[in-house]
Amino acid sequence: VPYGGGTGLVGGQVSVEDPAPLILSLERMTRILDVSPDDNVLVAEAGAILGDIQSAAAEAGRLFPLTLASEGSCRIGGNLSTNAGGTNVLRYGNARDLCLGVEAVLPDGTIWNGLKRLRKDNTGYDLRDLLIGAEGTLGVITKAALKLFPAPERFATALVGLRDPAAAIALLNAAQARFGEQVSAFELIHRHGFDFIAETMPDTRLPWGDPPEWMALIDLGFGAQALKGDDGGDGLEDFLAEAFEAGHITDALIAQNAAQRQDFWTVRETIPLANRKIGAVYSHDIAVPVSRIPEMIAQGRARVAAIGPLRVNCFGHVGDGNLHFNIYPPKGAVKADWVHLKDEIKTAIYDLVYELGGSMSAEHGIGRFKLDDLVRYEDPAKLGAMRAIKAALDPLGIMNPGATVPEVLGSGRD
Amino acid sequence: VPYGGGTGLVGGQVSVEDPAPLILSLERMTRILDVSPDDNVLVAEAGAILGDIQSAAAEAGRLFPLTLASEGSCRIGGNLSTNAGGTNVLRYGNARDLCLGVEAVLPDGTIWNGLKRLRKDNTGYDLRDLLIGAEGTLGVITKAALKLFPAPERFATALVGLRDPAAAIALLNAAQARFGEQVSAFELIHRHGFDFIAETMPDTRLPWGDPPEWMALIDLGFGAQALKGDDGGDGLEDFLAEAFEAGHITDALIAQNAAQRQDFWTVRETIPLANRKIGAVYSHDIAVPVSRIPEMIAQGRARVAAIGPLRVNCFGHVGDGNLHFNIYPPKGAVKADWVHLKDEIKTAIYDLVYELGGSMSAEHGIGRFKLDDLVRYEDPAKLGAMRAIKAALDPLGIMNPGATVPEVLGSGRD
Repeated sequence: VPYGGGTGLVGGQVSVEDPAPLILSLERMTRILDVSPDDNVLVAEAGAILGDIQSAAAEAGRLFPLTLASEGSCRIGGNLSTNAGGTNVLRYGNARDLCLGVEAVLPDGTIWNGLKRLRKDNTGYDLRDLLIGAEGTLGVITKAALKLFPAPERFATALVGLRDPAAAIALLNAAQARFGEQVSAFELIHRHGFDFIAETMPDTRLPWGDPPEWMALIDLGFGAQALKGDDGGDGLEDFLAEAFEAGHITDALIAQNAAQRQDFWTVRETIPLANRKIGAVYSHDIAVPVSRIPEMIAQGRARVAAIGPLRVNCFGHVGDGNLHFNIYPPKGAVKADWVHLKDEIKTAIYDLVYELGGSMSAEHGIGRFKLDDLVRYEDPAKLGAMRAIKAALDPLGIMNPGATVPEVLGSGRD
Repeated sequence: VPYGGGTGLVGGQVSVEDPAPLILSLERMTRILDVSPDDNVLVAEAGAILGDIQSAAAEAGRLFPLTLASEGSCRIGGNLSTNAGGTNVLRYGNARDLCLGVEAVLPDGTIWNGLKRLRKDNTGYDLRDLLIGAEGTLGVITKAALKLFPAPERFATALVGLRDPAAAIALLNAAQARFGEQVSAFELIHRHGFDFIAETMPDTRLPWGDPPEWMALIDLGFGAQALKGDDGGDGLEDFLAEAFEAGHITDALIAQNAAQRQDFWTVRETIPLANRKIGAVYSHDIAVPVSRIPEMIAQGRARVAAIGPLRVNCFGHVGDGNLHFNIYPPKGAVKADWVHLKDEIKTAIYDLVYELGGSMSAEHGIGRFKLDDLVRYEDPAKLGAMRAIKAALDPLGIMNPGATVPEVLGSGRD
């Protein structure tokens, strides 16, 4: 039973207690087959490591912008099968947006040669985007033609203290009005992220000793035109001065060089590791409309507080409305003493997310663990269409059975 | 029998000789239901006119970037059902990329409430992108949540003479390296476009009396940061001087004000009208990988010349690899005397397009007229999957029968 195309899968789709009957590995199909700067396309086999694809693009003077903490080990087939997200979605989109075509083995054994490198192709149904994000349940992606971009020539990066979560939205709006798509990333960070790093990895260099409660990491990436000005001024300092005047920010650190920029990003990327060391009672990968982020955070924290004296480490991608809303035991306590509250917490948070028009899986997918939640929260007409498509393309139910599609005949769950 | 969702359909899907048995009009469902600048979302009913959606976005200080010659009359439901393209795809993507969610009536009569306004949502199969571009054959889109963008605060626009089509690619690469996504449009124009306007609409103001054979219309859109510099310099003049030195361009006109910019765009948008007045023997809406554009043009013209002394008016969207490769009778002759060559011309061009890894329908779709071409040129595994999906979601074949999907039981074509 094939699993998806590579091992670049995001946490939780396979469990030890309920293993998939067979896992298909494409880890030997790692070739990068072509890099074309004129087409802005890179073609790779599904088992190619994301970091190797990034490097091959960079060697050709281009950017492949998909950026994840696991980029050194995850594989592009898995990234596509799970429609991976990450910190650059704001500017460049998610994995689905970064793929022009795929080759795939369909459930009946036919090979679909859809490895086009076209920006526009209106020849029938969008089979590509159906396979992307299907978590291997409709076929196995074996090759992909990926979009490349001009690599920014210069970055301007700041870590700022925010008045509150609402200020993050105002600040992002202002940044986009001023810099347009040059805003590459805009990450929300809670001080618990810093605290958890200090607690579990005390040797990590933290840019703030006593950080504000809410911070944003802002990264701007400019083309070569930004190198032309005599003063080298990119406008970030001015912009932050205005944001301070407007009351959106309380403090700001601007990276003075590439090493400082890297320090800021290292902190951001170390948060998930620190989280794992602390041990979450439950982790939510949610999305809400951007305007509802402040409500989501305020009400979400209130609903968790009503359950127990738990800590919430909320961080995420403001422009995507994507929050990692993770729940931890009180300081000094251990996960095992609180894990019995898991379902109560999850229900409280997902109920709120759907009241706000959100999604219980922004970038991590459904796998096996979230099937019941999918049935509970998602639209029945959509689930019906998913079942019909699954039955039509995989009538024997041999492709990653039991995952993603609830109650399909032959999926092992009926 | 529903037809798609609005009347925003692109040429040729319905013919007088072979009419659809019933056309569903949503032209009274025109409401714009919500505009949210913080979410960067606009929600509209499917019958809303594209131009009205653009205006509503502009009133909220945002841009809805889908731009077509027919924007004053076409409707968003049709734009989505046909995955419309246009001149801003380079920067902002096509209709599919501009839609976050839809409400749709599925063939079994259930209403799918997929009107999410989320940037990330990995909860199962991508039903949205399956309905978008399906030309009404899988359901009727009734509402859509559309992506908005910060509106550029300043434009810099030039019409340049190109050394040859290959220079267009080099120039676009250089522009994107320097200005990144601020390159909003990059249109290739052949002097036949100017000639046809002069011939059929002699009162039109043309920026060039004796234009070069190949031209590019370059439009840069900047955020507010571009207004901050003392000199107001946006880098376009410098950039073109370097392009002249490099031999990519032979001449350049830079728009000095908004009226001149509008003049350049008026010429570009008048070309399709002039084409219709001249009368094409056959019009191709093709895409090839960007790097193959020069080969496509050179070989395409040679293959047409081998058929007869025809005129080729080739224009299109360089960054999308999308060329409108249209064939006209010799000067002074009329279409009726040459139309018998239509199939021969079409086959010569489509054969070439597929030799180059291209598509015979970049932005216009399949409809009824291109069904046989779809079978001839597209991948059989894809067609098989399309048939299976159509049969699964619309087993009675009541949704736009006879369109888009070849040889489906109950489609009226079997």
